Amino acid sequence: MSTKEEITKEIEEQGAEVRRVKGDKNSTEEAKKEAIDKLLALKLTYKEVTGQEYAAPNARQSKPKKEEKPKQQPKQQEKKQDGKKQTLLGVGTKKDDNYSEWYSEVITKAEMIEYYDVSGCYVLRPWSFAVWESIQEWFDSGIKKLGVKNCYFPMFVSNAALEREKTHIADFAPEVAWVTRAGNSEMAEPIAIRPTSETVMYPSYKKWVQSHRDLPIKLNQWCNVVRWEFKHPTPFLRTREFLWQEGHTAFANPADAEKEVFQILDLYAGVYTDLLAIPVVKGRKSEKEKFAGGDFTTTVEAYVACNGRGIQGATSHHLGQNFSKMFDISYEDPAKEGERAFAWQNSWGLSTRTIGAMVMIHGDDKGLVLPPRVAAVQVIVVPVGFKTENKQSLFDAVDKVTKDLVADGVKAEHDLRENYNAGWKFNHWELKGVPIRFEVGPNDLAKNQVTAVIRHNGEKKQLSLEGLSKTVKSLLDEIHTAMYNKVLAQRDSHLKSTTCIEEFKKLLDEKCIILSPFCGRPDCEEEIKKASTREDGEGAQMGAKTLCIPLDQPKQELPSKCLFPSCTYNAKAFALFGRSY
Amino acid sequence: MSTKEEITKEIEEQGAEVRRVKGDKNSTEEAKKEAIDKLLALKLTYKEVTGQEYAAPNARQSKPKKEEKPKQQPKQQEKKQDGKKQTLLGVGTKKDDNYSEWYSEVITKAEMIEYYDVSGCYVLRPWSFAVWESIQEWFDSGIKKLGVKNCYFPMFVSNAALEREKTHIADFAPEVAWVTRAGNSEMAEPIAIRPTSETVMYPSYKKWVQSHRDLPIKLNQWCNVVRWEFKHPTPFLRTREFLWQEGHTAFANPADAEKEVFQILDLYAGVYTDLLAIPVVKGRKSEKEKFAGGDFTTTVEAYVACNGRGIQGATSHHLGQNFSKMFDISYEDPAKEGERAFAWQNSWGLSTRTIGAMVMIHGDDKGLVLPPRVAAVQVIVVPVGFKTENKQSLFDAVDKVTKDLVADGVKAEHDLRENYNAGWKFNHWELKGVPIRFEVGPNDLAKNQVTAVIRHNGEKKQLSLEGLSKTVKSLLDEIHTAMYNKVLAQRDSHLKSTTCIEEFKKLLDEKCIILSPFCGRPDCEEEIKKASTREDGEGAQMGAKTLCIPLDQPKQELPSKCLFPSCTYNAKAFALFGRSY
Ligand SMILES: [Zn+2]
Ligand SMILES: [Zn+2]
Repeated sequence: MSTKEEITKEIEEQGAEVRRVKGDKNSTEEAKKEAIDKLLALKLTYKEVTGQEYAAPNARQSKPKKEEKPKQQPKQQEKKQDGKKQTLLGVGTKKDDNYSEWYSEVITKAEMIEYYDVSGCYVLRPWSFAVWESIQEWFDSGIKKLGVKNCYFPMFVSNAALEREKTHIADFAPEVAWVTRAGNSEMAEPIAIRPTSETVMYPSYKKWVQSHRDLPIKLNQWCNVVRWEFKHPTPFLRTREFLWQEGHTAFANPADAEKEVFQILDLYAGVYTDLLAIPVVKGRKSEKEKFAGGDFTTTVEAYVACNGRGIQGATSHHLGQNFSKMFDISYEDPAKEGERAFAWQNSWGLSTRTIGAMVMIHGDDKGLVLPPRVAAVQVIVVPVGFKTENKQSLFDAVDKVTKDLVADGVKAEHDLRENYNAGWKFNHWELKGVPIRFEVGPNDLAKNQVTAVIRHNGEKKQLSLEGLSKTVKSLLDEIHTAMYNKVLAQRDSHLKSTTCIEEFKKLLDEKCIILSPFCGRPDCEEEIKKASTREDGEGAQMGAKTLCIPLDQPKQELPSKCLFPSCTYNAKAFALFGRSY
Repeated sequence: MSTKEEITKEIEEQGAEVRRVKGDKNSTEEAKKEAIDKLLALKLTYKEVTGQEYAAPNARQSKPKKEEKPKQQPKQQEKKQDGKKQTLLGVGTKKDDNYSEWYSEVITKAEMIEYYDVSGCYVLRPWSFAVWESIQEWFDSGIKKLGVKNCYFPMFVSNAALEREKTHIADFAPEVAWVTRAGNSEMAEPIAIRPTSETVMYPSYKKWVQSHRDLPIKLNQWCNVVRWEFKHPTPFLRTREFLWQEGHTAFANPADAEKEVFQILDLYAGVYTDLLAIPVVKGRKSEKEKFAGGDFTTTVEAYVACNGRGIQGATSHHLGQNFSKMFDISYEDPAKEGERAFAWQNSWGLSTRTIGAMVMIHGDDKGLVLPPRVAAVQVIVVPVGFKTENKQSLFDAVDKVTKDLVADGVKAEHDLRENYNAGWKFNHWELKGVPIRFEVGPNDLAKNQVTAVIRHNGEKKQLSLEGLSKTVKSLLDEIHTAMYNKVLAQRDSHLKSTTCIEEFKKLLDEKCIILSPFCGRPDCEEEIKKASTREDGEGAQMGAKTLCIPLDQPKQELPSKCLFPSCTYNAKAFALFGRSY
């Protein structure tokens, strides 16, 4: 860990860099943003280490950190006029202008996130938690069909267990939170909070496995984990506590274990494609990017158009026998008397990061856009054009439309509030991303219809009240497909292939993810990353890394030459490269 | 917190007491057990404080703590004979002989709990976690019907937030676990792990409440909490980390809040009566026993026959305006211009302690007895009396019976393992508490029937294969009712009423819970507790406390005199007293 003096020096240097970038006419907005983010992250680290806000010698950088500042609530922006609240809500920043600022606005104004006074921790409000519940329900039912059972292991890990697998712990140690005190008494031995549960669970697996008949073991838990990162935190995407599921399975033979790795990967792909309407590339992680201590890692990777970055969606690891040997998960080999056989293990996890990917990928300048299958409210019914004399009958009609939909399994709600006008409500529910809005007015009712407005493309349709639930259900499916296809087209138009490092760098700057022949070596990946990092004034950019080695390789023949010019090893596969979360 | 020297002295004194009790012919087993438990708890505290096992000067007490010793697995007790595993499984201790030892055996041998190397933390294996999932599903659907929404707040609390409500924190401070280090760097300010989330959530409630229109807020979360108790831990019943739900609601008017307190209490009673087949008494907690910082606490209280103790099932608190005033959850009073109105709040929680109560109350000398509605497996189908020539057809029939039940929504599984004989399987599934066992043999099939054996009473029935699922479903309901009635009869035969303190003490020793007139004062409750504590050699016993003031008061007239002889205050109600968990 850095000392106070080291961090102070880094902050001063980065402060100078920020001033330089800002003063340079050739700097892109992206470069400015990157430089400022790095500075904010350093100040956050400073606060962690010293307990105090960083105060610049000349106090020029005394502005509070962006992520610590509570955002204004929509209601605080309301102004009354004619007894009705008028709209000043909506997202003040355009997604293409500053996606980072836009993201903060959307998640707070759409009431997904509340900021919290412990840095890197956020409140998941019902509007985002409902997305997580939909994902939980779908995935939980999928793994139960595979014979996986739920359980719960303690959150605390003893140091002895944590350090058992060295490669693994080397990856996590810098981020582990330690409990050292209970009440007023110091603990004799600090106890860690799980960053992941391999080391929590596998001592029990050792006890449970006495014979090959005790295998397979297939367990899963839904829980919180803690990774005390010192990088700049972002709600959903990089948080110190997050929610996830972690599956941990053990088999007597490697083929069964490997088969399961890909069954789970298919379920993960399904969470994105079938629920979140996001296309993903399934692949293996490179040696450099795989889970430490495992044999291989598979992943689903999505693409975020606004910044051209890849985002890891979920990972399914084959641990081989590395952990079973460290933890002695073994039994008498039925094939070789007197010899021990070690279990073949997998672990796999999907987190609340899914929600962040969903926001980034589908959201627009009006706010959140919820894919219908994870929306807490799929249809919001708003009465329009009513007067005192017909109000009650109109409200009754709205109530009936809503209740009929709910009875048929559609997640519908109405907004009968009288202190907001219809325009305010339209904006409000668009900001919150509800897939379909019904406008119900006297004219609609006279024609036995409602007006439906589709959130993701703004289309208006008249829908007959006859068979409305059925119409709505197929409309929700259409919306899902249209949202998926829109993101797919965006992704595919930025998914390029090249064998030339110069073109590779150019494509990266054009927000592409790129398929290139690759030798697979960590050293070479590091070189490619360096070659694609931009530190100069033209717009600093992080380097590219492999997102994955896609399972479905391109149809063209693999060139023998690796992407990196001076690499003398043969290419082994096309790897998908990109700047990444 | 005690120092090493103080604890050493306490251990030496308690060691002497244990030897005295053991040597006293008049000591009851209960008294010996209590003395030993207290000694073990002290040694545990010693280890917490010093990081070392307590070593007696003469090394007489060097036996490892019972709760730390992993129990033998059933499979380790098997002996082979005729190529089949023979039974040595089952519970070695009778419930009436030593319920504490019996409990440890049952929860480990029935594969509910695995011991863990962090004291006070336990692994919830799938067999117990499935009970929790059933409870979650039922209760979650119940609160959603009341308009409660799920969310997730951070596990970490800043010291500033934690200490906001002084009465409240005074109760929890001695048990709070503190994170002071991340990776290798000390944190500038220690961060607490939630013991409950009032102080985590209410700063957000303050932000969200700007007008009376922002109320009610009705949120719930399913999560883990940590209370680092130094008393002797017991799986499910007293653990340092446990799972629960916590609901936190805020209303504009007190009547709505109070109404909800009792709606939730009814749901809690339903968890016990409708799922766990356990009768409960609904009541209010006394001033002494209520939730600190709240206005009043309601509770459901169950009775554990084997030790005559009451056990708190779940609590629903009305917080009044205490927290809203501390956290400034307020809005402009619509009735009085310019004045602030404060929200009326509730909080309510149900934990995995439910599972411990279920084990203690229903279990018997054969092991666990699962109430049908929370059983992971409701029917276990075992093939019997097969020979090589008919094995395949019998196994096919067993498979069909099982699949048909599953298709009709019964949780059925079969046990086709060939390395265990039928007798072993009977014992195994009885130990695990499966409500119904089907024995399917060639003779049964010839008669188009199966033999059903009911776990809780050992009855055998022949059931026709015609309409089997329907028969099984009503049989499961019958079992639920019979189990409930059995526990109710047990409870009611130990639920007495008296106005005389001497009879009160006698009844306590006869494992009764007792209705007595009570003035309600904490001082008086303390006197009654002291008067009913037995410290002498005849069998030390904890004192009685109020379990609750039952909502349904006895029909007889309330005497004006309080139970405690020298108390001069008038009795206000009948209170239910008992020794308690
Ligand atoms: Zn290379
Ligand atoms: Zn009294």
